[in-house]
Amino acid sequence: MRITDTDIAFAARLADAAGAAIRPYFRQPHGLEAKEDSSPVTLADRAAEAAMRALIEQAYPADAIIGEEYGVKEGTSGRAWVLDPIDGTRAFISGRPTFGTLIGLMVEGWPLLGVIDQPILQERWIGAVGKPTLFNGQPAVTRRCAELGKALLGTTSPALFDDRQLHAFEHLDAATMSTVLGGDCYNYGCVASGWLDIVVEANLQIHDFAALVPVVEGAGGRMCDWAGDPLTADSIGEVIAAGDPARIEEIMEALECRGH
Amino acid sequence: MRITDTDIAFAARLADAAGAAIRPYFRQPHGLEAKEDSSPVTLADRAAEAAMRALIEQAYPADAIIGEEYGVKEGTSGRAWVLDPIDGTRAFISGRPTFGTLIGLMVEGWPLLGVIDQPILQERWIGAVGKPTLFNGQPAVTRRCAELGKALLGTTSPALFDDRQLHAFEHLDAATMSTVLGGDCYNYGCVASGWLDIVVEANLQIHDFAALVPVVEGAGGRMCDWAGDPLTADSIGEVIAAGDPARIEEIMEALECRGH
Repeated sequence: MRITDTDIAFAARLADAAGAAIRPYFRQPHGLEAKEDSSPVTLADRAAEAAMRALIEQAYPADAIIGEEYGVKEGTSGRAWVLDPIDGTRAFISGRPTFGTLIGLMVEGWPLLGVIDQPILQERWIGAVGKPTLFNGQPAVTRRCAELGKALLGTTSPALFDDRQLHAFEHLDAATMSTVLGGDCYNYGCVASGWLDIVVEANLQIHDFAALVPVVEGAGGRMCDWAGDPLTADSIGEVIAAGDPARIEEIMEALECRGH
Repeated sequence: MRITDTDIAFAARLADAAGAAIRPYFRQPHGLEAKEDSSPVTLADRAAEAAMRALIEQAYPADAIIGEEYGVKEGTSGRAWVLDPIDGTRAFISGRPTFGTLIGLMVEGWPLLGVIDQPILQERWIGAVGKPTLFNGQPAVTRRCAELGKALLGTTSPALFDDRQLHAFEHLDAATMSTVLGGDCYNYGCVASGWLDIVVEANLQIHDFAALVPVVEGAGGRMCDWAGDPLTADSIGEVIAAGDPARIEEIMEALECRGH
């Protein structure tokens, strides 16, 4: 099963629909009477996912849907759309336009198509297996990184690691040139575009990472888990993204996944 | 000595000049032969500060200039322009458009006029003592925060604290609802606009915080150091920004600046 241009165009339509649903809620105040579950970010999350699910159910009724907000709809085609309408909730609620909408298409459990969309800045990365990743329609290419000690590393927050993971991350942090915090899915787009060398995170859900893999790999980078295995529906969510695949082994060594 | 509309317009001209100098370098690759000191961020930093200094020296030759890149030029007017062309170097070099240009005007050591400018997104906060802060020409107003436990807290990186400061920050982090990392000066604009409740940082230099105080205070918030004292040229750079001034005491208590 291959990813077609029709699939790619459809994924872009999904991102358009999500963005239109999200934009009205960005930087809007809580209603004074608002209940916790009707905060602007929750409303935006739900509206965006509902819009995307409606389009998928109409166009591809046999495809499964795995959504962050509305859960799993089983399918029969072997294809699953994996949706995170707002990745980077904290960025969204603090008015920072670096959250993103993530749209992945998995085929038999493998992420083969991905979109990272920033609807406020109108920035969009689209990657599909066998095709070059595009950033706003232009090819995105990762950069080479001659040595780990010169790498710029990103991660959203050390607070998202457990103790073992934090210890491992601190090893990597010490081995790289500099670390930038925050960023969420936007960091992976920055790797694809050659602005950032490495992102390492943990405890990601399938809807957090399915879209990222085709974007980073189609730009010349590599994504895998902390043990070097490919990221699939079964992964536990320990994620490495490297713009330069030649640095993967050293990243894993720094994370102490080897030699124990 | 008061801040005039002419001063405010001039500060905006400085931001325009800095932005024009910075934009060509954003998201540009290192030259393969580039020396460490000619990285795009360094070139942008220097070009922006040089452009601002030239304008100040022409318009206000008696004013002092305190620049992050080119140091101190003494003055005789009692006024000092405090410049940080790129606050958020890591954000800049990783392609994230949330760095900012900071322009402060201090009079007898007190920060009375400030600009936070994001030249890629064309977002600009301007604050001046006695006037409402403007965000892209519209009034920016902080939001109320009924209790510390519901506050959204921002800080660029825990790695920027020393051990004592980190311990204090962790207390505050535990007492608030949620913490967002990264953001640099952009966080203070978000406080001014009512999207974020609190920013706490430490070890800031005068060029990091002089511009922030008029922006946050002109929007209804309050800035002070961790002991509750006003931020002046003599401050050591432990900074609190609170959208709701009613929460300042609790923030200081959580930082354990009281009761010891």
